[in-house]
Amino acid sequence: MTGDWAVYGRAIHAPDRVEDLRETLMIVGSDGVIASVETGVSPRDPRLAALRDGDALIEIAGDEVLIPGLVDLHVHAPQFPQLGMALDMPLQDWLQHYTFPLESRYADLGFAEAVYTDLVDTLLAHGTTTALYFATIHLPATQRLAEICLGKGQRAFVGRVGMDHPEQCPDFYRDVSAEVAIAETRALIAHIRALPGNDAALVRPIITPRFVPACTDALLDGLGALAAETGCAVQTHCSESDWEHAHVQDRCGCSDTVALDRAGLLRRGSVLAHANFISDADAGLIRERGAAVAHCPLSNIYFAGAVFPLRRMQALGLHIGLGSDIAGGPSASLFEAARQAVAVSRLLESGTDARKPPAERGQPGARIDAPTAFRLATAGGGEALDLPIGLFRPGYAFDALLLRANLPDGNLRVAANEAADRLMEKIVMTAGRGDIAHVWVGGRLVKSR
Amino acid sequence: MTGDWAVYGRAIHAPDRVEDLRETLMIVGSDGVIASVETGVSPRDPRLAALRDGDALIEIAGDEVLIPGLVDLHVHAPQFPQLGMALDMPLQDWLQHYTFPLESRYADLGFAEAVYTDLVDTLLAHGTTTALYFATIHLPATQRLAEICLGKGQRAFVGRVGMDHPEQCPDFYRDVSAEVAIAETRALIAHIRALPGNDAALVRPIITPRFVPACTDALLDGLGALAAETGCAVQTHCSESDWEHAHVQDRCGCSDTVALDRAGLLRRGSVLAHANFISDADAGLIRERGAAVAHCPLSNIYFAGAVFPLRRMQALGLHIGLGSDIAGGPSASLFEAARQAVAVSRLLESGTDARKPPAERGQPGARIDAPTAFRLATAGGGEALDLPIGLFRPGYAFDALLLRANLPDGNLRVAANEAADRLMEKIVMTAGRGDIAHVWVGGRLVKSR
Ligand SMILES: [Zn+2]
Ligand SMILES: [Zn+2]
Repeated sequence: MTGDWAVYGRAIHAPDRVEDLRETLMIVGSDGVIASVETGVSPRDPRLAALRDGDALIEIAGDEVLIPGLVDLHVHAPQFPQLGMALDMPLQDWLQHYTFPLESRYADLGFAEAVYTDLVDTLLAHGTTTALYFATIHLPATQRLAEICLGKGQRAFVGRVGMDHPEQCPDFYRDVSAEVAIAETRALIAHIRALPGNDAALVRPIITPRFVPACTDALLDGLGALAAETGCAVQTHCSESDWEHAHVQDRCGCSDTVALDRAGLLRRGSVLAHANFISDADAGLIRERGAAVAHCPLSNIYFAGAVFPLRRMQALGLHIGLGSDIAGGPSASLFEAARQAVAVSRLLESGTDARKPPAERGQPGARIDAPTAFRLATAGGGEALDLPIGLFRPGYAFDALLLRANLPDGNLRVAANEAADRLMEKIVMTAGRGDIAHVWVGGRLVKSR
Repeated sequence: MTGDWAVYGRAIHAPDRVEDLRETLMIVGSDGVIASVETGVSPRDPRLAALRDGDALIEIAGDEVLIPGLVDLHVHAPQFPQLGMALDMPLQDWLQHYTFPLESRYADLGFAEAVYTDLVDTLLAHGTTTALYFATIHLPATQRLAEICLGKGQRAFVGRVGMDHPEQCPDFYRDVSAEVAIAETRALIAHIRALPGNDAALVRPIITPRFVPACTDALLDGLGALAAETGCAVQTHCSESDWEHAHVQDRCGCSDTVALDRAGLLRRGSVLAHANFISDADAGLIRERGAAVAHCPLSNIYFAGAVFPLRRMQALGLHIGLGSDIAGGPSASLFEAARQAVAVSRLLESGTDARKPPAERGQPGARIDAPTAFRLATAGGGEALDLPIGLFRPGYAFDALLLRANLPDGNLRVAANEAADRLMEKIVMTAGRGDIAHVWVGGRLVKSR
């Protein structure tokens, strides 16, 4: 469709709590941005007939509901082939014996193209309309990832991974120097910004030091300076595990968060993955800088050794979204990450050891509910990135999923006229790619079944 | 196919640890029982050509692998419409405000027929070749469930729920008396055993007191006597939550396990759901009686308040399988239950509270690995039920799933010639209904895509 068009029917989203947008007429401009959102529009409203006549109306059926697209704040694109593998190893062994050898293969552009094509298709099919990608140290393959995202219409931040520390990175997979890493990052930024068809900045570069242990001070400082110079956001890992948290404390004499800040890497719209072991002071610093946390419940189960204290961090005003953490997390579905965010919050609240009395087992008040998880996966991601996505509001991009319930091959089972909070709970707890009929990014239909 | 037929190719299963059955020729008799399993058969073996000529050979391709069918030891069939709903409530409120009102609707046979048809189709599509069903107190609807399982070819144990305790069961959904509950259970047993086409006992009756709090002593004792008289197995709940565990202790002056045993309800092939809070002595008693535990990690997150100490219970020799616990668990997939069994064991091992030092956080040694979860979902279920299912061995039923990797719509991504233990891990961590090409139960092809 060219020019303005519209959707009409039921939508739900979570600006703060659940908002049930019934009989909603949403006008989408030719720029893919929502122009207006009006609820309670009668099915006999003459505007609907006019839009229908102009073939400019998508009507949401009774078994369907529109929700915002999902925002995945943490994806390691090259690790997709090892999804669900070797999660029984400690993080450092998993990196050295599986992940680094796999990532080193992206020197082969053909291999990269095949995996990245499958990955972007898969994530779009799972409803991920925006993704933050760590690629590898290879500039050509990373450029190719950005081009694939743009071609398939996925909103994306793509980063060339910087990792030059000789003690933490293997010889076969390491930046030859901080200078080269910085120069290639600069080249990636220029390449992505100049991509034909990327005028609206659907795909953006992002500065990506792997994590403090993998980077020399020279690289951290250089990438921080490059971020200030280019205005790019930053993504990295922070205080993921006991090991990482202690390692940075030993090396830098400060917390991971403070070390990143000293290098100029805590910036507005920047995303720190995990942050499981940050202090309240760290949280305050992240908030002050306008940066955010990607909560990755799926991978934390295997590599963190503890549960991210989400409720406590929300109370401190931190911006938080969700990450799949492919392939430390074994699922490409952000619905799965949302479910697991609820699950681990419950286990943090209840504790896990049945031999202890209930009062000594867990952390009272730690649980989140399903609408909170829904918000993290949508509006929370938009807030983290400082982008107008994740809500149905004028001025927001029309990034949306049409869910169709009660499909024989789907998981979502919905009764007629299900209350919005229960509907949202069922979506978080059961929805998957089999329930997604259509996916739009910036008003463009990018997947359909 | 009539008469003997065969499959040829790669299969994996978990008799104890992973067994990689490469170039395997498996002969299946017309009774649906595996007659022979021979590995290392050359693709040029003349027997293959002969079988091919007789149109009696299923060949497993390079991207495919055969695994045993999944055994779901705990399903509440009538709760399927509320999958993923109201899990934020405590168990007792969830039962009173959502579950009992829903279950009471199965007085309507038409409603029952629609839900049960969808459920059995859905479980077969998810690869559940054997299921243990709690139905409701309604005899006609419960009979109908058994008929649907038989018609669709799912191996099943179907139970009419007994619940007559006036203090724990609402007026609108309660057995009028212990006598009626026992008489209707007896009628169900006779009905299922006499079903036309059920000569091989594909579908079996199972005696089903809901749980001790919901049953009077008269009902518990009566159902125990009926089990002894008819030789039926028993399914019920045991020590699920702090509340239930303490309630039974108060009422009976003994543990839940001992109370069930006194009523004659701990029998060979019987299944206790949950058992999160049982003592080592309870575990010894369950083992001695030849009964087993259905570990339900998905629902335990919401209703148990602790994690089932699987490794400790395995070390005590307990027979353990997996349950989805639909709809206390929000997923119909036993792959999902297997994944979650690994996940919660990791959180039991690590603990969840990041503010505690690692050494004080969790229970060292509590983790299970993916092959163990695979075993629970297959051979463990067979062992629990004392049935020859869950393994590829002569004398075992041919209950099997053909997984096809690398499908665009599937989740399972497998490299050429992936090692068996890593392949099994990927299956546990990522597989779902989208990866299942065929499902057989007792040699009958019951689902295909
Ligand atoms: Zn990561
Ligand atoms: Zn149950």
